[in-house]
Amino acid sequence: MTEKIKRFLSENRIATPTLVVDVDRVVENYRGFARLLPGAQIYYAVKANPAPQIIKALVREDSCFDAASIFEVRQVLACGAEARKVSFGNTIKKEDDIAAAHALGVGLYAFDSEGEVDKLARAAPGSKVYCRLLLTNESAGWPTSRKFGCEVEMARDLLIAARDKGLVPFGVSFHVGSQQTDLTQWDVAIARSKVLFTALEGAGIKLGMVNLGGGIPVPYRESAPQDEVPSLSTAGRAIADSLNRHFGNQMPRIFAEPGRAMVADAGIIEAEVVLVSRKVYDDSRRWVYLDIGKYGGLAETLDECIRYRIETARDGGTTGPVVVAGPTCDETDVLYDRAGYELPLDLAAGDRVRILATGAYTSSYCSVGFNGFPPLAEHYI
Amino acid sequence: MTEKIKRFLSENRIATPTLVVDVDRVVENYRGFARLLPGAQIYYAVKANPAPQIIKALVREDSCFDAASIFEVRQVLACGAEARKVSFGNTIKKEDDIAAAHALGVGLYAFDSEGEVDKLARAAPGSKVYCRLLLTNESAGWPTSRKFGCEVEMARDLLIAARDKGLVPFGVSFHVGSQQTDLTQWDVAIARSKVLFTALEGAGIKLGMVNLGGGIPVPYRESAPQDEVPSLSTAGRAIADSLNRHFGNQMPRIFAEPGRAMVADAGIIEAEVVLVSRKVYDDSRRWVYLDIGKYGGLAETLDECIRYRIETARDGGTTGPVVVAGPTCDETDVLYDRAGYELPLDLAAGDRVRILATGAYTSSYCSVGFNGFPPLAEHYI
Repeated sequence: MTEKIKRFLSENRIATPTLVVDVDRVVENYRGFARLLPGAQIYYAVKANPAPQIIKALVREDSCFDAASIFEVRQVLACGAEARKVSFGNTIKKEDDIAAAHALGVGLYAFDSEGEVDKLARAAPGSKVYCRLLLTNESAGWPTSRKFGCEVEMARDLLIAARDKGLVPFGVSFHVGSQQTDLTQWDVAIARSKVLFTALEGAGIKLGMVNLGGGIPVPYRESAPQDEVPSLSTAGRAIADSLNRHFGNQMPRIFAEPGRAMVADAGIIEAEVVLVSRKVYDDSRRWVYLDIGKYGGLAETLDECIRYRIETARDGGTTGPVVVAGPTCDETDVLYDRAGYELPLDLAAGDRVRILATGAYTSSYCSVGFNGFPPLAEHYI
Repeated sequence: MTEKIKRFLSENRIATPTLVVDVDRVVENYRGFARLLPGAQIYYAVKANPAPQIIKALVREDSCFDAASIFEVRQVLACGAEARKVSFGNTIKKEDDIAAAHALGVGLYAFDSEGEVDKLARAAPGSKVYCRLLLTNESAGWPTSRKFGCEVEMARDLLIAARDKGLVPFGVSFHVGSQQTDLTQWDVAIARSKVLFTALEGAGIKLGMVNLGGGIPVPYRESAPQDEVPSLSTAGRAIADSLNRHFGNQMPRIFAEPGRAMVADAGIIEAEVVLVSRKVYDDSRRWVYLDIGKYGGLAETLDECIRYRIETARDGGTTGPVVVAGPTCDETDVLYDRAGYELPLDLAAGDRVRILATGAYTSSYCSVGFNGFPPLAEHYI
């Protein structure tokens, strides 16, 4: 938790649940990234936290932006970003939305399928496009699927087709999986990118860009060995080494799309204990119910994947095992059951708790009003 | 899909994705329930769909309401319900919210823990209270946890404590698990309720109510045997038989809290295909991406639990296997991968699809704007 947030919380008794984000920390993170990958162009993944305060601060830093939808495109433009600094990075776009982005001046688009190349050729002729590669995303901390990307052979054909249809085949992108702790996954992806570069040279296409996506892991709870993540500088060095090894003197432009790593540690959620109970007299664990749960902003507790650190005013005393759950009448609104959480034995209803590193993928995930609970309140300081 | 919705869709080219709900069907469902469990008092589980149009229609039918939060309490009162017809059914409530409901005239509350009895005694003195029993919820179609309820021995002590603290020990509640297909689960729960009734008689407490909760299953996709559900009338008969067997001439008042079974089949979602693609040339399955996904209202596709029927304009031709996914840049936004969905081979981007029986647990679940996509639009006709 940053000093500015500590001061803010000590000076203000805010209603709960509320997300408090230190925008200065986001700017520090941006600058840290820029130092770590010198020459790389940073496209902030807006979906991680689309608050205008964050986008405006990053516009002032001259950041670029990765937009997941036409709505995010409009949002970043409304916050002062230039259209030439926006990448429409979702590989699944309605043709009308591509046309709308094109009309707004956006000139860079992702794709991973023939259908999308056709839409782009019709709705955004002449634009730069990049193809997303399919990866297996082993060791990622967030569940993965085969939802995005295509294999190298198809990517080659699609980039050739893109050229033939009047688009500019600009580069390749990938995503190693969110909260990726195995740094060799970037090397696998960069090697595959190089294969694609080489394959296209034979067709007279010289790609000029590798988009590293996101996936840089953020430290959450660190009580167990499996919760440990490599530091940002270690990850940066591994990626730079891999790029040098595979591309050497033929280094393309490098894009990166950090989201989580840019905003997660800039935010905390102030919440309240609603109830502490047991189900049977000899229960070894208490149930601790908070006023925030899976549907109020903590969606990333899905499958107990993201394990946030929880601070309480009673920390320091004796702790005991707990199940942590949210306030809704939904059986699935349980945050941590198997993850082995412990909380102070004297924790009681009405106590405040702070959920750390919650600046990313919280406020925008929350429901419009499941069980009637309003969306998470937000303060940007 | 009801005739009224068919007519509405043929007369209006609505934007997608949009939920369309036939309020007349909700009223029919209410009346069906009332016929099926004569004498039972129906408390509509507002969380299933809190639209004012639905609540107002049910107020006209003289329904009671199960509210999951103080926000839902206020919502039903604003729609014209009398406070005496509202049950504050969440066992996890802030003391301030109990006090607020009490001040509004709500006199019926659920609990399952000592902490909650204490809060109720302080904030809603003299109120009727009922204790929720813990069940294992086997065979439920929606994931279950031990989040709600306590065991019979504890329930007995808590109801005695409630009386001693100035509350009125009114009854018992349970929930067999949402989308419960095994009708014997109600019998297990009703038998356990009877044990509690008997145990309390020894302490001079005569309970007067059994709250059957919800859980009545709704038919969704019916292509596989495991997707088949008992009919409403079969379920109603099984429950009535069980009540007669266990309570006989000592029948208490019966409450039921249908949510899904009241509104699911009254609604459909009109959506659009954004992209159809393959990941590799020899993929046996296509990926069909819709403009609605897990974060836009189809949260109940979690673990592929709720399997909606999907209609397309091209139905009738040859079909092939598909993965169905949503439009966001999130790997988890995949609706059906293992569930064996098939869709027409000529399905293409821009095609309309209709997702059936989506009146419950859709609009209120959707995110405020994950990836920038606005919440699901809604029409109540």
